[in-house]
Amino acid sequence: VVAALLADWHAGDVAHLLEQSDAEERERLVALLRPSFDAEILAYLPLDLRDEVVSLLNPKELAAAVAELDTDDAVDVIQDLDDGARQAILENLPAETRALVEEGLTFPESSAGRLMSREFVSVPQFWTVGRLLDYLRAAAGTDESALPEQFYDIFVVDPMHRVIGAVPLSRVMRSKRTVRLMDILTKDIHSFSATADQEEVARSFRRYGLVSAPVVDKAGRLIGVVTVDDVVDVIEEEAEEDMLRLGGVGEGDLYRAVLDTTKSRFSWLAVNLVTAIVASVVIGFFETTIAQVVALAVLMPIVASMGGNAGTQTLTVAVRALATRELSEANAARVIGKEMLVGTANGVLFAVLAGGIACLWFRDPLIGLVIGIAMIVNMMCAGLFGALIPFALHRMKIDPAVASSVFLTTVTDVVGFLAFLGLASLILL
Amino acid sequence: VVAALLADWHAGDVAHLLEQSDAEERERLVALLRPSFDAEILAYLPLDLRDEVVSLLNPKELAAAVAELDTDDAVDVIQDLDDGARQAILENLPAETRALVEEGLTFPESSAGRLMSREFVSVPQFWTVGRLLDYLRAAAGTDESALPEQFYDIFVVDPMHRVIGAVPLSRVMRSKRTVRLMDILTKDIHSFSATADQEEVARSFRRYGLVSAPVVDKAGRLIGVVTVDDVVDVIEEEAEEDMLRLGGVGEGDLYRAVLDTTKSRFSWLAVNLVTAIVASVVIGFFETTIAQVVALAVLMPIVASMGGNAGTQTLTVAVRALATRELSEANAARVIGKEMLVGTANGVLFAVLAGGIACLWFRDPLIGLVIGIAMIVNMMCAGLFGALIPFALHRMKIDPAVASSVFLTTVTDVVGFLAFLGLASLILL
Ligand SMILES: [Mg+2]
Ligand SMILES: [Mg+2]
Ligand SMILES: [Mg+2]
Ligand SMILES: [Mg+2]
Ligand SMILES: [Mg+2]
Ligand SMILES: [Mg+2]
Ligand SMILES: [Mg+2]
Ligand SMILES: [Mg+2]
Ligand SMILES: [Mg+2]
Ligand SMILES: [Mg+2]
Ligand SMILES: [Mg+2]
Ligand SMILES: [Mg+2]
Ligand SMILES: [Mg+2]
Repeated sequence: VVAALLADWHAGDVAHLLEQSDAEERERLVALLRPSFDAEILAYLPLDLRDEVVSLLNPKELAAAVAELDTDDAVDVIQDLDDGARQAILENLPAETRALVEEGLTFPESSAGRLMSREFVSVPQFWTVGRLLDYLRAAAGTDESALPEQFYDIFVVDPMHRVIGAVPLSRVMRSKRTVRLMDILTKDIHSFSATADQEEVARSFRRYGLVSAPVVDKAGRLIGVVTVDDVVDVIEEEAEEDMLRLGGVGEGDLYRAVLDTTKSRFSWLAVNLVTAIVASVVIGFFETTIAQVVALAVLMPIVASMGGNAGTQTLTVAVRALATRELSEANAARVIGKEMLVGTANGVLFAVLAGGIACLWFRDPLIGLVIGIAMIVNMMCAGLFGALIPFALHRMKIDPAVASSVFLTTVTDVVGFLAFLGLASLILL
Repeated sequence: VVAALLADWHAGDVAHLLEQSDAEERERLVALLRPSFDAEILAYLPLDLRDEVVSLLNPKELAAAVAELDTDDAVDVIQDLDDGARQAILENLPAETRALVEEGLTFPESSAGRLMSREFVSVPQFWTVGRLLDYLRAAAGTDESALPEQFYDIFVVDPMHRVIGAVPLSRVMRSKRTVRLMDILTKDIHSFSATADQEEVARSFRRYGLVSAPVVDKAGRLIGVVTVDDVVDVIEEEAEEDMLRLGGVGEGDLYRAVLDTTKSRFSWLAVNLVTAIVASVVIGFFETTIAQVVALAVLMPIVASMGGNAGTQTLTVAVRALATRELSEANAARVIGKEMLVGTANGVLFAVLAGGIACLWFRDPLIGLVIGIAMIVNMMCAGLFGALIPFALHRMKIDPAVASSVFLTTVTDVVGFLAFLGLASLILL
């Protein structure tokens, strides 16, 4: 009964149910789904769960299910599986599908070539609306698999199969049968090479409000089409990737086992241990100062913490703006300068606040002065490096989301402790 | 010449150029664009820049430009302007457009009602494909504004104007003229109430791979349509919002002036100052201990920093999973338990590392023991609270992205200093 119910569900809903279940429940659900497994469910599952679900299915059955998909979904489902599972499915695919999928897998990861579907509608430039409609009706009647499940634009090609332009379906439908496609096509289309990065594709879809776009080879010949439903996933994935990387997490690991998760988080924490020790070494230079004025040990984390937070604010804005291309060479100097000013301005405000509090707490205006100056210095550096580090990494082609935080907290810790304890040993002793 | 060139550009490209320019260049560009200003440019600009650009235009001209847009874009452009500017544009709009836009503005911010377009194609259930095509061709010939600029689905309604189903255009085009829409429509469609949150809309678009979806009133009558190009923006905005909030930044402030940015970042830093002082007070309890063993002051930031980082990893994963609904009541206990185990496991690993280093550095195995135990305790708490805090905030209907970090760092600082210094005063003295 449950199996019959699930068969009516949308693949996205089944995937969501599998996500919410624990490993045992998943095993039972997959057993129910097995007789008529819809491979599209895999396309909606987070990567970590795909391997798990695939391991519960038989490669032959799975290959039959994958063969039903459009090529883009087939490539999407297969590309992230373990080598063994991938090979087993590929071997059981019909020859033609297998060739298309294997070709898709030759394009770099996260490229337009991996995203594109090989099923699309392209027609010669001399066709009329009427001829197009007749062709589509005939194709649907005879060979259903010649047409994509869904399409949004008709691509008009020349005899060499180079894209000349596109006609959105809604424009076809408002045109009379005698209208020539040449007269209603949009020439100013946005096409991608198969090796284009998916982030670039996503940015174009957003900037131009696209619903589908052609992928072309070096000679400009149409080889595939990227559609917006897959770009929506890319946008989510890329934003998620940056957010998780900023938080020091490699990949979504919600579904991984304790041991795997521990391992995947270890390396970032190990880097943090090194930077924390560097900061401790800086403190170590001032052991004798601290021994004389223990209040310094009490107050020193405040300076480092405020610098770290102010720097993280700037860093987050900068990493995000680099990802959306709002921050670029053109305005980098302006943004970096501004962030330094903002850091300094807040530094002055918090110098007064923290200085006042420290002065009252330890009944010593000089301690207030020391923490105040250190605060201004550290928050100025936080603003400067919070903007500079991600931009520098970006120029060096290193993902600023991954590496910026480590460098930044090292700077704000070291500068914070050095300025505070250094000034203290100059002024207080 | 430049003006003529810009007139050919896509609105998205013009918006990008304006983003990359500084305030002066923007003023000159807008002056060039003014004679035939395309209001769609505003829809592509970040919010902060919209006010600036609008202030450079005359309300009458702007109203004329806005009147050319589909209602969803008109509402989008107008909703975030200053009250004065908004009123000035509304007053200059044609009466009919004004009524639609004002109605759109009555729906809550970030709702389906604000996103939807009032232009859509809905037809009676008894129509055939042929009749639909004739209707669209006739409408395009006579009153162009009756049809939306672009549409992707035909909505089939009953005599009460309630949505019965939808037919994607690609399905219409592969069907013969005599086919009845009733026989090819998808009944299992996903519709939204006008007050539905845009995040909910975006999740459905992703989960079901939608391209357009109907918005209905309480009686189920079709009142508008949300299209994927606008949902793409929502997905970006919501992901950006969470990322910036986690970083302690209220809103994208890349384009704001120094003073505004300083103000907007101040409040989060002020909260952080309070939590930093709380941590300092905890350290203050152990002044005499630190005075006796200054090494404690050198090492104590390591424990707090490792806890903070481990907690942030968990927090980031949890906040993201709550936003995508991968984390929910159903699996919360499991995720929280797992994160505590992961924290403890890494705690043990780093206890050994940090303990060994401290022991060698200060030639005292007891100091190594103290930092090791404190590390395990703090990283266990980091895992526990890193998952528990966002989930608890989510249940209290508070956005976990905004408030989680403050609570978490307070926990990891206080527990870190308390465990380390407390154990030290028990074991070392
Ligand atoms: Mg996901
Ligand atoms: Mg498909
Ligand atoms: Mg994918
Ligand atoms: Mg697809
Ligand atoms: Mg897809
Ligand atoms: Mg990427
Ligand atoms: Mg990225
Ligand atoms: Mg933006
Ligand atoms: Mg429009
Ligand atoms: Mg729209
Ligand atoms: Mg839009
Ligand atoms: Mg929101
Ligand atoms: Mg949100």
